[in-house]
Amino acid sequence: MKNIILVGSGNVATHLGIALQNCNYKIVQVYSRSIENAKKLAQKLNTNFTNDLIQLKTADLMIVSVNDDAISTVLSKLKNTAIVHTSGSIGMDVFEPNFSDFGVFYPLQTFNTDIKLTISEIPFCIEGNSKAFEKQLVEIAKNLSSNVITMNSEERKQLHIAAVFACNFSNQMFSIADDLLTKKDIDFKILLPLIKQTIAKLNTNKPKTVQTGPAKRKDLQTIKNQINLLDDDDFRNIYKLITNQILRQK
Amino acid sequence: MKNIILVGSGNVATHLGIALQNCNYKIVQVYSRSIENAKKLAQKLNTNFTNDLIQLKTADLMIVSVNDDAISTVLSKLKNTAIVHTSGSIGMDVFEPNFSDFGVFYPLQTFNTDIKLTISEIPFCIEGNSKAFEKQLVEIAKNLSSNVITMNSEERKQLHIAAVFACNFSNQMFSIADDLLTKKDIDFKILLPLIKQTIAKLNTNKPKTVQTGPAKRKDLQTIKNQINLLDDDDFRNIYKLITNQILRQK
Repeated sequence: MKNIILVGSGNVATHLGIALQNCNYKIVQVYSRSIENAKKLAQKLNTNFTNDLIQLKTADLMIVSVNDDAISTVLSKLKNTAIVHTSGSIGMDVFEPNFSDFGVFYPLQTFNTDIKLTISEIPFCIEGNSKAFEKQLVEIAKNLSSNVITMNSEERKQLHIAAVFACNFSNQMFSIADDLLTKKDIDFKILLPLIKQTIAKLNTNKPKTVQTGPAKRKDLQTIKNQINLLDDDDFRNIYKLITNQILRQK
Repeated sequence: MKNIILVGSGNVATHLGIALQNCNYKIVQVYSRSIENAKKLAQKLNTNFTNDLIQLKTADLMIVSVNDDAISTVLSKLKNTAIVHTSGSIGMDVFEPNFSDFGVFYPLQTFNTDIKLTISEIPFCIEGNSKAFEKQLVEIAKNLSSNVITMNSEERKQLHIAAVFACNFSNQMFSIADDLLTKKDIDFKILLPLIKQTIAKLNTNKPKTVQTGPAKRKDLQTIKNQINLLDDDDFRNIYKLITNQILRQK
């Protein structure tokens, strides 16, 4: 399994393509429905590109990294080949009955095209439709990372929801904090030591056991004052919902 | 201002007391309404303790680190002295009209009694009722940290709300993630590389510009599937509210 085709040219495809090439895999072609995006990634990888699924070459493995909502449409246009998708939320059933060797190659990470990350630390969650194919996928993942786990679709879907809370939703909390500070001309960077300590605690503690703040202390007057100071409906609703949840916890 | 009395024995009082002593300030007495807690912290600091506000000695500065809801009650029982509280959310008006030199000494950090942290990196937000007193407070803070800012009560209150989102609410997102993983016997530690990268991006980017995930990609089918998989009402409501907020952003 040395020759690989990338279907998709977004954040995941980009990081994965570069990492695979660094591990001596050959990316033989890049597909994107946008010819500009296909070309851009192909140039980074010094390979061919197309925006037409009919024109895809053959390879040892096809890696489909497109939006979840587009996966089944893309698959319906492909010929039988060894194939994986990289989505946490899409099950194995999406491949049936058109493919013989199929699986999931899910890197549990937040990918932005132009932000560097350490591929070797990313947990790769692998599933194959047969033991033999799964073993081949695990082998590829182990060349990229020291953190490779096999996992079924049900577990992976739950992991992806957990990741949405832990990454996307926590980032949205940082984004709201930034909006609040901007209103008073305070630089978001003032929060970085606080955020870093919040995370540092997780290395050796469960999040619930190290919660702090007005809700944890049941400082009800402070909570009331803070709700009154929030002039954005969304922010106020989020504040109330999460605060009530913390207040109810023992 | 070398002799200091700590009113309170919780997370903030503990870390502040130890840090001040390390900088050659003398903690002459610790008060807590719980005599056990007063004794515990006093032993750490090798000093006197009491659970009776009437029995407080005199000192150059009194630092009040009790729950927000208790500050005004505690202050009403104290004689005039140079005094600060350490709360982000309580204004300067709480001291009036009983004190001549008063201010706020707010360390922007998440404190757990038994978890180490680097005091020298904590932003200390200082406010004094006179330029002269504020200068004295800034001097103390600068002995503890390289990150000292003067800030009025209105700015500090907004900063504290931002900190609740950035720290307490993001930690609650990690806690929900942990609950979701526990249901499938998956170790929370699998999320640590993802969480670390989420934070690492903030060193050089605004959170809004580096958001990822189903809502950011407008993967509506995945969003629907994830809502269906959440069997806890709170989790589902939080998921919907934050997802809708991200969906509406450009």
